[in-house]
Amino acid sequence: MAYDTQNIFAKILRGEIPAHKVYEDAHTLAFMDVMPQSAGHALIVPKTQAENIFDLGTDELQQLITVTQRVARAARQAFNADGITLMQFNGEAAGQTVPHIHFHVVPRYAGKALQAHGRSMENNTVLAGHAEKLRTLLNQ
Amino acid sequence: MAYDTQNIFAKILRGEIPAHKVYEDAHTLAFMDVMPQSAGHALIVPKTQAENIFDLGTDELQQLITVTQRVARAARQAFNADGITLMQFNGEAAGQTVPHIHFHVVPRYAGKALQAHGRSMENNTVLAGHAEKLRTLLNQ
Repeated sequence: MAYDTQNIFAKILRGEIPAHKVYEDAHTLAFMDVMPQSAGHALIVPKTQAENIFDLGTDELQQLITVTQRVARAARQAFNADGITLMQFNGEAAGQTVPHIHFHVVPRYAGKALQAHGRSMENNTVLAGHAEKLRTLLNQ
Repeated sequence: MAYDTQNIFAKILRGEIPAHKVYEDAHTLAFMDVMPQSAGHALIVPKTQAENIFDLGTDELQQLITVTQRVARAARQAFNADGITLMQFNGEAAGQTVPHIHFHVVPRYAGKALQAHGRSMENNTVLAGHAEKLRTLLNQ
């Protein structure tokens, strides 16, 4: 299927809509999920037009997972998380809601279940605070 | 925390207990999850002693995700899956049950929810059949 250039992450990558960015390099962008499943939930996307993992070349995937690991490490520290869940959904049947490949970095806290995905929008000030914490660690 | 050399994946890697293997190279092993969340659920592990993603070097992680992508592609084809969910849990709070890092490749089927993780053991013949399908594609 042709890549949908009007998907929300494509718009974020083009700067047409804002995001709470935490990391950016030539190949990759990371930003806060506006409907987090837990405090500190971040997303990592490649800049290339790829709908899912099957559309990524080996180099592109390796760049993406390397940044994902960095964000996961920063999130663990920034939010004193007890664990980190990584998720990556390919296809609507797998729970993919935006047709641009992304890794979820979801901080986990002991005894606390995840919120449902995409259920409610987080407060903008909260997201900005979380982004600032991650940015600080990722730019060290 | 020190790596637990008696965990079940360490035993599989040493050949001390059997597994339905689907792919192996110098760095990586992939095999069927014996308690699948859906038909065709496979696991990909590095051969290095690493409890979680934070214990992996960049090269090791890149090797692991590259094989994960290959297994995901094979699973999509082998099982006519409508989608593929990748999951990777770090820490008990994140749902990690075996302390050796692993990626889950979970085929998804439209309208079918996932079974709970680690709930019930799949029939051995079914697992052998799924492994054979994946092996055939991965060795082409």
